[in-house]
Amino acid sequence: MLRRYLPILTWLPHYHRRLCGADLLAGLIVTVMVIPQSLAYAVLAGLPAVVGLYASLLPALAYALLGTSRTLAVGPVAIVALMTGAALSGVATPGTSDYLQAALVLSLLSGAILVLMGLLRMGFVANFLSHPVIAGFLSASGILIAASQIGYLLGIELSARDLLPRAAELVRHLPRFHPPTLAIGLGSLFFLLLMRQYGRETLRRLGLSRPLADLLTRAGPVFAVLATTLITWHLDLAERGVAVIGDVPRGLPPLTLPGFDASLWQTLLVPALLISVVGFVESVSMGQMLAARRRERISPNQELIGLGGANLAAAFTAGMPVTGGLTRTVINFDAGAQTPLAGFFAALGIGAVTLFLTPALYHLPIATLAATITVSIITLIDLPMIRQTWRYSRSDFSAMAVTIFLTLVEGVEAGIISGVALSIGLFLYRTSRPHSALVGRIPGTEHFRNVERHDTETASHLALLRIDESLYFANARYLEDTVYDLVATRPELEHVVLICSAVNLIDASALESLDAINARLKDSLVTLHLAEVKGPVMDQLKRSDFLDDMTGRVFLSSYAAWRELARPPNG
Amino acid sequence: MLRRYLPILTWLPHYHRRLCGADLLAGLIVTVMVIPQSLAYAVLAGLPAVVGLYASLLPALAYALLGTSRTLAVGPVAIVALMTGAALSGVATPGTSDYLQAALVLSLLSGAILVLMGLLRMGFVANFLSHPVIAGFLSASGILIAASQIGYLLGIELSARDLLPRAAELVRHLPRFHPPTLAIGLGSLFFLLLMRQYGRETLRRLGLSRPLADLLTRAGPVFAVLATTLITWHLDLAERGVAVIGDVPRGLPPLTLPGFDASLWQTLLVPALLISVVGFVESVSMGQMLAARRRERISPNQELIGLGGANLAAAFTAGMPVTGGLTRTVINFDAGAQTPLAGFFAALGIGAVTLFLTPALYHLPIATLAATITVSIITLIDLPMIRQTWRYSRSDFSAMAVTIFLTLVEGVEAGIISGVALSIGLFLYRTSRPHSALVGRIPGTEHFRNVERHDTETASHLALLRIDESLYFANARYLEDTVYDLVATRPELEHVVLICSAVNLIDASALESLDAINARLKDSLVTLHLAEVKGPVMDQLKRSDFLDDMTGRVFLSSYAAWRELARPPNG
Repeated sequence: MLRRYLPILTWLPHYHRRLCGADLLAGLIVTVMVIPQSLAYAVLAGLPAVVGLYASLLPALAYALLGTSRTLAVGPVAIVALMTGAALSGVATPGTSDYLQAALVLSLLSGAILVLMGLLRMGFVANFLSHPVIAGFLSASGILIAASQIGYLLGIELSARDLLPRAAELVRHLPRFHPPTLAIGLGSLFFLLLMRQYGRETLRRLGLSRPLADLLTRAGPVFAVLATTLITWHLDLAERGVAVIGDVPRGLPPLTLPGFDASLWQTLLVPALLISVVGFVESVSMGQMLAARRRERISPNQELIGLGGANLAAAFTAGMPVTGGLTRTVINFDAGAQTPLAGFFAALGIGAVTLFLTPALYHLPIATLAATITVSIITLIDLPMIRQTWRYSRSDFSAMAVTIFLTLVEGVEAGIISGVALSIGLFLYRTSRPHSALVGRIPGTEHFRNVERHDTETASHLALLRIDESLYFANARYLEDTVYDLVATRPELEHVVLICSAVNLIDASALESLDAINARLKDSLVTLHLAEVKGPVMDQLKRSDFLDDMTGRVFLSSYAAWRELARPPNG
Repeated sequence: MLRRYLPILTWLPHYHRRLCGADLLAGLIVTVMVIPQSLAYAVLAGLPAVVGLYASLLPALAYALLGTSRTLAVGPVAIVALMTGAALSGVATPGTSDYLQAALVLSLLSGAILVLMGLLRMGFVANFLSHPVIAGFLSASGILIAASQIGYLLGIELSARDLLPRAAELVRHLPRFHPPTLAIGLGSLFFLLLMRQYGRETLRRLGLSRPLADLLTRAGPVFAVLATTLITWHLDLAERGVAVIGDVPRGLPPLTLPGFDASLWQTLLVPALLISVVGFVESVSMGQMLAARRRERISPNQELIGLGGANLAAAFTAGMPVTGGLTRTVINFDAGAQTPLAGFFAALGIGAVTLFLTPALYHLPIATLAATITVSIITLIDLPMIRQTWRYSRSDFSAMAVTIFLTLVEGVEAGIISGVALSIGLFLYRTSRPHSALVGRIPGTEHFRNVERHDTETASHLALLRIDESLYFANARYLEDTVYDLVATRPELEHVVLICSAVNLIDASALESLDAINARLKDSLVTLHLAEVKGPVMDQLKRSDFLDDMTGRVFLSSYAAWRELARPPNG
C-alpha cells in the first residue's frame, strides 16, 4: 500500500554505486541544460524569469518521491507556460504581485486536481483527448508561442494579446525595431536553428564521438546564453536599451502561501483543470514511450499523484504550474539517468545556481530566451500528423481543424474544450447509426454472413438481423427504425431474430426500444427472437421483464435459430 | 420537394366528407377541453392566462400546415411552460411588459432553432436524451410544478422560487391561508382526482357508453372551471379576495414583433435550445407512438420544422413557446381526429372563444387552474420507471438520480444538462474499456471461442485476441495495455492476431495505437497480424501507412490465420 503511493520505496532499497554515478552525471547535465529553458518558460508565462528556476527545484524533488517514471524530468514546459499566461492575464496584470499570487493559486488548484484525480483513479480521463485534438492543439499553441516571442526578438513592445491584432500591431510597429536587440535575438535564433539542423553532423565530421556530438548539439541554448550574456555585459548593452533579466534575488525560493480568494479560485478552476489534464497527457504519453524503450512500466494513476505533488510543491515555493517536459526528459534519458535520483541531483544543482549564480544572470538578454523558446516550439508544430490525419479520416481532421482554428482565434481554453467536445460528438454521431446486416446461411455450413456480400441461403418468412454495436440511448431509436422498415417492406415476415454477438451492452433506453419493437411486432403478428446474447447482457436482461414479455425465444446460436425457424411455416 | 416541406399537400387532395365530419367533431371537443389547460399553463409560465389561448391558435394552424403527425395537437404544455417560467424569471419580473416581450423572444429563438435543426436534419439530437434522463427530468419537473401551484391552491402568496426556501415559506405562511380560495382550490383538486380515479367506471355503471364515459371523464377540468366560475360569480368571491383571471381583452391575438436586444437574446439562447430539444423529444416520441398505432409514419426532421413553425407563429401572435401536448393530443386522437384539419378546426374554435367569450372568463378562479395543473402533472411522475431503472442498471439509474436531484435543487436547466452530460460520460466510460477475449479453436471446427469459457485448442506461440468494440480515442490506450500485458506474461509468444470482426471503426488515435503496438511488438520480435477486418475499415486503413509498416499479414478469417500460424514454429 505504502509502496503504491511512494514508488521511491520500490527502487531505493536496491540502489547501488554504479546507478549513483550515472544519475549524478545525468543530474549535472540536466542542471546546465535546463537553466535557459526554465528561465524562458517563466518569461513566456509572464512571470519573472527566476520563477522558472524555483519551479524546477522542489517540484522535481516531489516528483522524484511520488512519480513512477524513472526518467521523467519535471519543471516548467512550453505548453503549460502558455496556458498559465493565458489564464493569469485574465485576472491580473503581468509584473504585479497579484499576478504572482494568481500563479501560486493556479499551481495549487492544478496540484489539488491532479492528486484528487489520482486518488479517484481517473487516469482514464486523459484518453478523451484524442490524438488529432492534441496534435492540433500543440501545433496551434506553437504558433501562439512564436507570436508571443516575436516582440522580444525584435525589441518591439506589443500590447495586443490576440493573434490577429498582435500581427497588425507588429506590422505597424516594425520600423521601430531595436537594432542591438534584433542582432542578439535573430543571431541566437539562427545559431540555434543551424545547431539543430546541422550541429550533430558537423561536430561528428569534426571527429567528436556520437554521444558528445549529441550533447553539444543539445547544449546549443547554453552556448547562446553564455555568449549573448557575455556580449551584453561586455558592451554594456543593457544601458543601450537591450532588455535583460536584471536583478534576481539570490537564495533558495521563499516559502509562499497561496491566498484564498473565492472569486479568484473560481475563475482559475477551469484553466487549472485544463492545465492539469493537458500537462498530464503530455507527460504520461512521453513517460510511457520512454518506459517502453527500457521495458519498464509506469502507472498513470500514480503519475497523477506525482505530478500533483510537484504542482503543490510549486504553489508553496514561489513557482508556477509544472509537468514532465519533453526537452528536459529527453536530455535526462539520453544522459543516462537510471532512477528518479537523477532528478533529485538536478534539483540540487539548480538549488546551487539559485544560491550562488543568479547575479551572473543579470546581463542575460530576454531576446536570447525568446530565441530559445521559438526554436524549441518547432517540435510542437506537427505538419506530417496534420497531413496524415487529413488523408486518413475527414472526421478526425475536422476535430483537429476546429481545435487549431479556435486555439488561434479564441485562445487555448476555447480551443481544447471545443476540440474535445467535437471529437466526442462525432464519435457519438457515428455510433448513433449502428451498423447492422441481414445475414443468411452459407449453404452447407453453420456460418451466417451478410446477404448482400455473400451467396447465402435465406427464408422469406425469417429475417436474421445481426447488430454490430452495443445498444444504448443514442442508437436505440435507429434500431427501432431498422426493424420497422424491415417489417414494412416484407409483409410475408413471421420471425425476426436479432443476433447480438457484437452487443456488449443494452442500456435502459435500448431496453425500452426492444420492448417497443416487441410490442409493435406482436401487433403485426411477427415473433421477435434473440440469438447469441452474451452472458453479462443476458444477466442484465433477466433483471427486467423483457424476457417474459418477448414473444419469441433466446437462441444460443444463429444456427440454432435457423434450424428451428427456417422450416417452411406449414412444413 | 414541396411535399417534403409541406406535408399538407400529401393528404389534402384526398380529403373527403367522411374525414371532415370526424375532424370537425374532434376539433370541437378539443376546443372545449383545452381551454382550461391552455389558461393554466400560461399562468404556470408566469404569463397572463389569455396568452395560453393565443398560443393555441396560430401555432396550431402552422403545425397543421407543416407537421407530419395527423393527430398531434400543438399548444402550451406543462413542461415547456415550467421551463419558460424558469427562463423568463431570470430576465424580467412576471406581470411586466418586459416579461411578455421576453416570452416572445424565447418563442422566436426556440422556433428558429427548431427550424434550423430541421433544415440541417438534426432530428437525431433527440436521441441523446436517454430515457432515464427524460423520465427523471419529467418526474422532478412534476414536483416543481406542484410546488409552484400550491400557493394558488391555498390562497397564499409565496415569493421564493427555489424548492426548499419555498417549502419553508409555505410552512411559515400556512396559517394565513385564504378560506374561500382554499375551498375552491382543494374542492376542484379532489373533484378532479376522484374523476380521474373513479369517473370512467362510475359513469359506465350509470349506463353511459364507453366513449361517452371516457369523454365526460376527460371533461373533468371543464366542469370544474364552469362550476367554480359560476360559484365565484354568484357569491362575488372576487370581491372577497379570491384571485380570478379578471379582465381579458376580447378579440384575436394582436400581431407582435419580438424586439431585438442582443444581451437578452444571448441570455435566452441556452434556455431556448433546451426548451426546443425537450419539447421536440416529448412531442416526437408521442407522435411516433400514436402514428405506430395507426400504421402511419412521421418524419422527425419535418416535425422539427412543424414545431419550429408553430413557435415562430407564437412569437408573432403574443404567444409563448409551444409543442405537441400529451393531454390535448390524446383527446384529439380519442375524439377520432383523422387529419391535421382537426387541429385547424380546434384553432378556429379557440379563435371564436377569444373573439366572443373572454368576458365569461372574468370570474374563473386561479385556484381552479392550479388544481387542473396539479392533477395533470401526476402523469409526469413516473415511479415505476424509476424503480425499473434501479433494478435494471445502476449506471442508468445514477444518471436519472442526478437529473432528478439537480432539477429539484438547481432548476430545470442544470438538471437536464447534467443528466445528458452524465449519461454521455457514463457511456464513454463504458466503451473506454473495450471487451476483448483470447480465443481458441473449437477442435475439429472452424469456430473460435473465448478460451476461458470453452474447451479450445490453442498454441503457446500464437495469441488470437478478439476485439469486441470499435477502436477510437477513448479506448485505444486500453487496447495497447491489453496487448502489452499479453506479451509481458507470455515470453514464448511469436504471433499476435487481432481479430477485428466487431470493429466497425478505427479512428486516427486508434491507428496511432496500432502503430505503437506494432513497433513495440517488433522490438520484442513478436509479429502483429489482423484478421476479419471489415471492408470499410480495410479501405480506411489502406489510406494510411500502417498496413505497409505492419510486421505481419491481414487474414480473411481467424481460421486462415490459425492454419497459417498455429504450426509449431520449427515444424
